[in-house]
Amino acid sequence: MIAPSRQRELRQLLNRIQIPEESINWNLLDQALIHPSFSTVHNNDYLEFFGDSVLRMVVVTFLREQYGDRSVGDLAALRSHLVSDKVLAAIADGYGFDRFLVMGESAKRDPKTSLSRLANSFEAVLAALYLSTNDFRLINQWLYPHLQRISITVLAQPAFGNSKAALQELTQANWHILPEYKAIDSSEPQIFMVEVWVNNFCWGVGKGSSIKAAQQEAAAIALPALTKSLNSSAKNKS
Amino acid sequence: MIAPSRQRELRQLLNRIQIPEESINWNLLDQALIHPSFSTVHNNDYLEFFGDSVLRMVVVTFLREQYGDRSVGDLAALRSHLVSDKVLAAIADGYGFDRFLVMGESAKRDPKTSLSRLANSFEAVLAALYLSTNDFRLINQWLYPHLQRISITVLAQPAFGNSKAALQELTQANWHILPEYKAIDSSEPQIFMVEVWVNNFCWGVGKGSSIKAAQQEAAAIALPALTKSLNSSAKNKS
Repeated sequence: MIAPSRQRELRQLLNRIQIPEESINWNLLDQALIHPSFSTVHNNDYLEFFGDSVLRMVVVTFLREQYGDRSVGDLAALRSHLVSDKVLAAIADGYGFDRFLVMGESAKRDPKTSLSRLANSFEAVLAALYLSTNDFRLINQWLYPHLQRISITVLAQPAFGNSKAALQELTQANWHILPEYKAIDSSEPQIFMVEVWVNNFCWGVGKGSSIKAAQQEAAAIALPALTKSLNSSAKNKS
Repeated sequence: MIAPSRQRELRQLLNRIQIPEESINWNLLDQALIHPSFSTVHNNDYLEFFGDSVLRMVVVTFLREQYGDRSVGDLAALRSHLVSDKVLAAIADGYGFDRFLVMGESAKRDPKTSLSRLANSFEAVLAALYLSTNDFRLINQWLYPHLQRISITVLAQPAFGNSKAALQELTQANWHILPEYKAIDSSEPQIFMVEVWVNNFCWGVGKGSSIKAAQQEAAAIALPALTKSLNSSAKNKS
């Protein structure tokens, strides 16, 4: 059982995201908003793990309904954007998730971890909503307008769909080098396979009906992986 | 409309996986079993993309029901095994998926691509089953016994849960070096964060209530990423 004051708080959040409270499992929603800095045992770690899959399911269903005519490459690029910490944190922040998140004192004062904290609690809340009803409808209704708004912005960017250009910018800015593309044998006449190498590592393998399409796919896979690695090392230096 | 001979073939497959045919969208199931080497336009690329999310949802739901008492670290390790190409291809191969897969002549003779071909068509079939009913029940009923059997094997391995040991073996075998673990500031007293570096790249960031737990998580994230990169470069050399 959760305290009445906490329930009032959580009711506020449900109001903000316009989800009817009748169908909610309050204990799960409460746990989704407990940061591991508050308790190492009873926190939102597990729900974040579960919520990641809920989110991906919601996103691909949204993309099927709204962008069913797009290429798989475009859809994969949109998905990787829509499930990124940055995007999730921005949505959560718009609802003031931090106000509802129970956390340790030090965590509150730390702007560095705020992005992952928001993104993780967002995913955990998705898990709580899904597990309350075993149904995606509540979540779809809440998230589709957000996913639509963000997709429109992403699709309007001139660099969208040109992962090769974006990857080249990234490697030049960081190491003054160009990514290396190597065609590998796909053993199928109509299909090309390409690896992309940066600093002696293969960061992505793409396939497509042309060398160019395969390169774009390889670059699209390499981009988030390299960016993640760079962010980690930047954090370490700071 | 699909040809009666193709429908007979697909009916055979449904029999093998014991899924009732009444609820099936035949066109989707047909498309799930068309390899891109046969047609660059009408193939299972998109369904594979969608099926990846279906699979993850099925796997985390299974893990919740069967291994709800395990740590999130254990669950993440199990998940990464259960969604791996190797495991999916083995399940698909057990049902003789290749017999039902329409593909180009050259693709048939290529043992190198057989793993990804099987894994991809398996994911595509999951998408076709899910989209036929908008429900996970058919798939759960089919896959849970497989997931159970594989989980039991994985959990029984002595290396399970010791990603650090597995990662060390990998880097020593390939480059005669040890992974480097760097503690980074988590700014939260009870939470430790650790990066793992191999060959000047950070391959994973882990967090936990002890340095050791954080290192294990970082290693668990680095393992599949490094393995994937190594497999790609090995393929390129061969």
